[in-house]
Amino acid sequence: MLDSLRVVLVSPRNPLNIGAAARAMSNFGCTHLRLVTPYAVAFREARSAVRAGYILEQAKVFESVAEAVVDCTLVTGTTAGGRRDLHVPLHRLEAGGSLLREHLANGPAALLFGSEKFGLSNEDMSHCHWLMRIPTREEHASMNLGQAVAICLYELRREEQEAAHRFPVPANAAAADLERLTELLSDVLARSGYINECVSRSSELKLRRLIRRLGIPANDVETWLGMFRQILWKVKEPRP
Amino acid sequence: MLDSLRVVLVSPRNPLNIGAAARAMSNFGCTHLRLVTPYAVAFREARSAVRAGYILEQAKVFESVAEAVVDCTLVTGTTAGGRRDLHVPLHRLEAGGSLLREHLANGPAALLFGSEKFGLSNEDMSHCHWLMRIPTREEHASMNLGQAVAICLYELRREEQEAAHRFPVPANAAAADLERLTELLSDVLARSGYINECVSRSSELKLRRLIRRLGIPANDVETWLGMFRQILWKVKEPRP
Repeated sequence: MLDSLRVVLVSPRNPLNIGAAARAMSNFGCTHLRLVTPYAVAFREARSAVRAGYILEQAKVFESVAEAVVDCTLVTGTTAGGRRDLHVPLHRLEAGGSLLREHLANGPAALLFGSEKFGLSNEDMSHCHWLMRIPTREEHASMNLGQAVAICLYELRREEQEAAHRFPVPANAAAADLERLTELLSDVLARSGYINECVSRSSELKLRRLIRRLGIPANDVETWLGMFRQILWKVKEPRP
Repeated sequence: MLDSLRVVLVSPRNPLNIGAAARAMSNFGCTHLRLVTPYAVAFREARSAVRAGYILEQAKVFESVAEAVVDCTLVTGTTAGGRRDLHVPLHRLEAGGSLLREHLANGPAALLFGSEKFGLSNEDMSHCHWLMRIPTREEHASMNLGQAVAICLYELRREEQEAAHRFPVPANAAAADLERLTELLSDVLARSGYINECVSRSSELKLRRLIRRLGIPANDVETWLGMFRQILWKVKEPRP
């Protein structure tokens, strides 16, 4: 799905950020990188330095935003927001991400990121149908470019095939095993002098509750039983 | 809410990544950065170079993971996964993030990130209750450290209000208590002949994982410690 996305970096200055954007794209399965008037030295350096080089090799360079988004049926951008009158609808990333995801199922869309220092200009934004804002703190809203790209792509990819990728929750131990463990531990404690014989009935109840509060995974039960059998053997050991 | 989170970088090597982690923390309102055996030069450089300096100034350095997570009642880690037998439950970030968010409403939790080259070691992971995986492509799963931190913090912060109305979960035991319990039980088992001295190192990791899988409630910790102290006293008892 992220194959219909075009990540567009407008006037990026730092080769490390260009490289980081490409790496995140590779991590999340997105191949189309476009650069608008990048700082030439930065682009050359990024190309020679970074893994995910296949994305940088195929990256296309444009002279204007208009040219870079020419084939896209939806154009979106990112902003730290708050600084000016935007003239364009602004969504939080969670909401914008799901709109964008829907669109990507049907056709190509662009996601614009501005330069490290200035973000997207009003001119750049005028090409956008709407904007997204990553929910950062207002006091420090502006993100590093590479990190912003990574977060947006993660948001687009998260919960894709949610069900397919869920990990099974480990089953808890059966009551019979917990009871066996309770008896063993009770025996160990009695022989260690922790449980006084006179009050052992109420101690047994406390112990049972204590063990139920643990939530022992079924796969671990045999190990715990084995340990306590061995400890019991030791505390029962007859004196020479 | 992210104020109860401790971001723990284990053996980071690159000052730019340490700086990027700090910047993302500032973006998302998370202040507690902890470093375990960072490459000293990298830490010095990061401190002198980067915005979000207040986080780096307050960052604490530790000699071991155990010390870095000592006050945390939940310890989680990140992994690109797939490389080995993990021994620890693995959640996708979406699912793990919501578990972590719930926990953070009630008490401090740690989120561990491994070094740029090797990720978290088996030893590091043995301190974790569970792990999370960012849903990257399998063909290029490993993310840049600064980007991984940014994505995890974003996931914790997105739709924050969602978690606000949930019921409180009983607090889990702090890592320091779990480690105390691990040591006590290890001692008891060694003296009972359950743990062979020759293989005690790998046994220690197994034991640590076994205890983390239990999820011991904070209120029960003293009782468990008391029991095992008594059992230890018994198995140490000199023969007449």
